[in-house]
Amino acid sequence: MSSSVPQKVRGMQDIFGEYQRYFNFLKKVARHEFRKNGFTRISTPIVEMQELIVRSAGIGSDVVSKEMYSFQDRKGRELVLKPESTAGVMRAYLENFLDEPQPVYLYYIEPHFRYDRPQKGRYRQFHQVGAEIIGEIDPVLDAKMIHIGCSVLDNIGLKGRYKLKLNSLGVAKEREKYVQELQSFFEARAHLLDETDIARLRANPLRILDSKNEDVKELLKVAPKITDFLKKESKDFYSKVKAYLDILGVEYEEDHTLVRGLDYYSHTVWEWVDGSGRTQDAFGGGGRYDDLSKNIGHKESVPAVGFALGAERLIETLVDTGVKLRNKDAIHLYFIQLGEDATKMILPLSIEARNRGVNSMLSLGTPSLKVQMKKANRLWARYVAIVGIMEAKKGICQLKDMLNGTQEELRLSDLLDRVVANIDAKELDFYSPTKDFVIEEPKTDSEPSENS
Amino acid sequence: MSSSVPQKVRGMQDIFGEYQRYFNFLKKVARHEFRKNGFTRISTPIVEMQELIVRSAGIGSDVVSKEMYSFQDRKGRELVLKPESTAGVMRAYLENFLDEPQPVYLYYIEPHFRYDRPQKGRYRQFHQVGAEIIGEIDPVLDAKMIHIGCSVLDNIGLKGRYKLKLNSLGVAKEREKYVQELQSFFEARAHLLDETDIARLRANPLRILDSKNEDVKELLKVAPKITDFLKKESKDFYSKVKAYLDILGVEYEEDHTLVRGLDYYSHTVWEWVDGSGRTQDAFGGGGRYDDLSKNIGHKESVPAVGFALGAERLIETLVDTGVKLRNKDAIHLYFIQLGEDATKMILPLSIEARNRGVNSMLSLGTPSLKVQMKKANRLWARYVAIVGIMEAKKGICQLKDMLNGTQEELRLSDLLDRVVANIDAKELDFYSPTKDFVIEEPKTDSEPSENS
Repeated sequence: MSSSVPQKVRGMQDIFGEYQRYFNFLKKVARHEFRKNGFTRISTPIVEMQELIVRSAGIGSDVVSKEMYSFQDRKGRELVLKPESTAGVMRAYLENFLDEPQPVYLYYIEPHFRYDRPQKGRYRQFHQVGAEIIGEIDPVLDAKMIHIGCSVLDNIGLKGRYKLKLNSLGVAKEREKYVQELQSFFEARAHLLDETDIARLRANPLRILDSKNEDVKELLKVAPKITDFLKKESKDFYSKVKAYLDILGVEYEEDHTLVRGLDYYSHTVWEWVDGSGRTQDAFGGGGRYDDLSKNIGHKESVPAVGFALGAERLIETLVDTGVKLRNKDAIHLYFIQLGEDATKMILPLSIEARNRGVNSMLSLGTPSLKVQMKKANRLWARYVAIVGIMEAKKGICQLKDMLNGTQEELRLSDLLDRVVANIDAKELDFYSPTKDFVIEEPKTDSEPSENS
Repeated sequence: MSSSVPQKVRGMQDIFGEYQRYFNFLKKVARHEFRKNGFTRISTPIVEMQELIVRSAGIGSDVVSKEMYSFQDRKGRELVLKPESTAGVMRAYLENFLDEPQPVYLYYIEPHFRYDRPQKGRYRQFHQVGAEIIGEIDPVLDAKMIHIGCSVLDNIGLKGRYKLKLNSLGVAKEREKYVQELQSFFEARAHLLDETDIARLRANPLRILDSKNEDVKELLKVAPKITDFLKKESKDFYSKVKAYLDILGVEYEEDHTLVRGLDYYSHTVWEWVDGSGRTQDAFGGGGRYDDLSKNIGHKESVPAVGFALGAERLIETLVDTGVKLRNKDAIHLYFIQLGEDATKMILPLSIEARNRGVNSMLSLGTPSLKVQMKKANRLWARYVAIVGIMEAKKGICQLKDMLNGTQEELRLSDLLDRVVANIDAKELDFYSPTKDFVIEEPKTDSEPSENS
């Protein structure tokens, strides 16, 4: 089929149908988990000042040097489509939350962008659910964050299907020392490295820990380990995180090569990886980022810990794992009507259906009966009521029970009684937003009070 | 306070706290309304090809000429941050839904962007909830869409507080004729127009209908009206829409000057405006856009009708109107613990609380008791359990009833019984995502069946 409609932007996707249902499910589970733990939602703008992102991710990072969607607005401001939300949340915190009781618990569900080579499961617009606790430092916060992330994974159906990798990066001074030693170690063995790894070693030595080269992986077993460079305070902090994880029943694997991609982490870092080894990428991860506030230009260090989970990776894993969502939005009653008279009889019935908790849907437009039945099937409709021209004259309908395939003729005035009687009362939908709010009428001063 | 942290992008806002709660409420009501009417959600990318938006909004439109966030990616593709979602949804429909049973019911909740002068309530990133029915033409679809939009407004608390304005733009040929007559009418009276309106008249005559000039408003009363140019077919279509609205109990005001900003509408157009006249901008609006598919380059006209509601405008109106949201995420039990021993005793209790339906939260970090109590208050905590160093040694806590201000000492092992006994059973939270899914284990071929 030839068509010159501009296509969707390369590497981005429309989310609909079954994929959207998984996405909604993930969002619902995450929202519930975060709320029940006292987090409130924040949505920072899709667009941030480029300077914020550069300072936060670090000038040498892949994000900044290769993967950023950056552009100028009409006034020449340097902007980016945010590659992640932590920098924006910290910015928003500094602008709005310093005078609130600390620490502040925030969560987000946001689209992020990277100008990356599109591959299966890696999109240029991708989505993350994440949370941050900002304003206090305590190892129990790190443990609690990890526990919450595990709960989200457990509750979407991945219990027992992921592994938690854990490490500590200590503080900046300890890391500096370690980086020097790591660099020396590999410089002395430079003849064993390929060009990519030599480049990594010179630009950002920590990235050698992500090498896929088998020789390097062997060397890493005997190379200096970050945990050997931690002083007492950092060691204590890390021990406490692990002790709290034990109390919370969270299992973890220590991985001394885990450093995460971004510059801003200190102390605890972690990643959730697929337990089956089916996918290479992590489901998500997090860490403590006490230095981020200073990196982006704030005068003080603000302790913080957070994590993010990748929606696309999780959805693919749910599908691969065989997690099937129950269809809760099934239509109880699907109307098929032919002609205007039938339509006019059906419209008020569809409103009455709503009031009686019955989810109904009208087949509007002019498709054939066959197409309409196909649609009713796709929507898992329990009943189909057919009102043709003859039926409309007589005020009756043909009611088809889609579960057992039977069909009967009955009066339109009896239709809803029949349907309601045959649907499990628990399935009827009486949600009304009016219970969620009250309207406080503005008081007029002139109104006399009861006692006057 | 001096700080050199890059600020948020001008004209954009962080959404959190009370504002976010209203936003969540609006999203929830809209999702429910759409789903119950058989709509499923679509999320099109934030970024679209510039060509798609230019073809859809029209080259002379304000959106395209002044208000678009446009930029090039690293490969030189001309992209835009989407100013609205209808063009993207139509593109996605053409790419994915042509072979589905028609019509297709889709809804969205999306951020949109316009490079506009920031004003109160008008942001450069703003949000809309909207819906589209694509693939069939029938006046009852237009009426149904209007009815659904009214239901969303009614259900968020604005029942009786908005007016629906309605018009028909007929089809392209009828509009052409009308535009010629309108232009002639005003050209003959050009001496009564100011420069802005003369410019409008020459560039896009229909825009004169939006003039704020009082003289022009007077002239419009005697100027040619679009409805006088509709032929029988268009008149019939419009009459049927109105007849269906009557059956659905939807009140409307006809407004012959209503044309909406975009080029792609035909037949029915409508807007919801504030009934109090408090705000100038519409809450939202919609219309039929049977020509959009051809405008963007598809070989055929695809009938479609849709609407969008502006989240920011609605939230401000809810606040102004006195609509107060009930706080449903109240914390039942807030733990305040001092010292590591207390923390270690509390962590398992917080997990047990969760299993018993109690929303609990831990005061982690090191703030003072006073700050913690303030936080418990803000979170509407029903109970606060304080475990100090002495209490931890004895395995007890001080339980404060925040409703009546009483305090008592009790054993930690009795704490949850006490709390559960005093909370309305309906308030306990037993939501478990596990009821939302089943895991279908992949079958292994080697597994013997029961009969083998």
